[in-house]
Amino acid sequence: MGGKFQEDIVVKIYGDSISGNCLKVAWTADSLGLAYDWIEVDIIKGESRTPSFLAMNRAGQVPVVVLDDGRALSQSNAIILHLAEGSALIPDDAYDRARMLEWMFWEQYSHEPYVAVARFQVRYQGRSVADLEPGLVERGKAALQRLEDGLAASSFLVGERLSLADVALVAYTRMAGEGGFELAEYPRVIAWIAKVEQGLNIT
Amino acid sequence: MGGKFQEDIVVKIYGDSISGNCLKVAWTADSLGLAYDWIEVDIIKGESRTPSFLAMNRAGQVPVVVLDDGRALSQSNAIILHLAEGSALIPDDAYDRARMLEWMFWEQYSHEPYVAVARFQVRYQGRSVADLEPGLVERGKAALQRLEDGLAASSFLVGERLSLADVALVAYTRMAGEGGFELAEYPRVIAWIAKVEQGLNIT
Repeated sequence: MGGKFQEDIVVKIYGDSISGNCLKVAWTADSLGLAYDWIEVDIIKGESRTPSFLAMNRAGQVPVVVLDDGRALSQSNAIILHLAEGSALIPDDAYDRARMLEWMFWEQYSHEPYVAVARFQVRYQGRSVADLEPGLVERGKAALQRLEDGLAASSFLVGERLSLADVALVAYTRMAGEGGFELAEYPRVIAWIAKVEQGLNIT
Repeated sequence: MGGKFQEDIVVKIYGDSISGNCLKVAWTADSLGLAYDWIEVDIIKGESRTPSFLAMNRAGQVPVVVLDDGRALSQSNAIILHLAEGSALIPDDAYDRARMLEWMFWEQYSHEPYVAVARFQVRYQGRSVADLEPGLVERGKAALQRLEDGLAASSFLVGERLSLADVALVAYTRMAGEGGFELAEYPRVIAWIAKVEQGLNIT
């Protein structure tokens, strides 16, 4: 994506440790060896809705990063694309890069709103799995099946190398069990999660 | 985003003319002077769910493009980022590029699911505006207000030049009235729509 990998960039990451979207940013920064400060923002306590937070991000969403020049960025996938510019987490080949972006946009539209939301409702809002809205569960399962199918021909989502597509998708997929999804039904997904965790050095 | 603008790329665009997501791709291709064939796919008639379409895109969504080497890509925003690589529709500056991506991910997560869905329900499913789900309307209005706020300091979403952020956001914003939203409440958005339409040479 043009530009050079800036290994000395210093950022502040405002994030909630329970949020996969926020963890994506930390994992990317760690993987790149970037220095940063993590500022914990408790969503459930309303800390992303305070006047000072809203001044930084009007949408009241985490993660937000503040770059070393003081400028802010939001949207997890936009942030990791920015941080990882010029690094091995973004494929050199233009078509592979497009496929990485395809997965990343799909993640925000067709995966996160179901897999992450089910998990949030069960784990943090006390809803039982049986009481989840059936459409939510159905679409979450469809997303997991789509991942299973997408991993039929390669070890990672884009070919044989870890990319930001894997970072973006693994975040909530590895927590899907907390929302009542049976990951055991998706064996390629399970193997992929282990590989991505190993590649990112997370457990 | 690295790479060179390929002005001789020939693509097939599979799209439904009623879909803003599909129009984004046509506008981008037209703006870049790319040659392409448009293959109309009628979503309402189920043409995106036929076996032959699903073989091309398992998710059964339009748009899909098939590049001149026969490889397919889906996800409107990933497609336009690929087609426009190296062109003036993508800012040179790394931070501006990140802000463009921020708007594009936000569009798919916080704008399209409300503004486009309300319009689809009213115009194509015969629902009255009064019967729209209140949360849908509220979030659609919040998205339009976020755009209005985002245009306070600049003519386009990222500075003073048209970028893919404008292409992605204008698609359903200009049709918001069809879903019962009152664009007159967002005067900067109205002025911006006119500028983007002029920049893309669409009416």
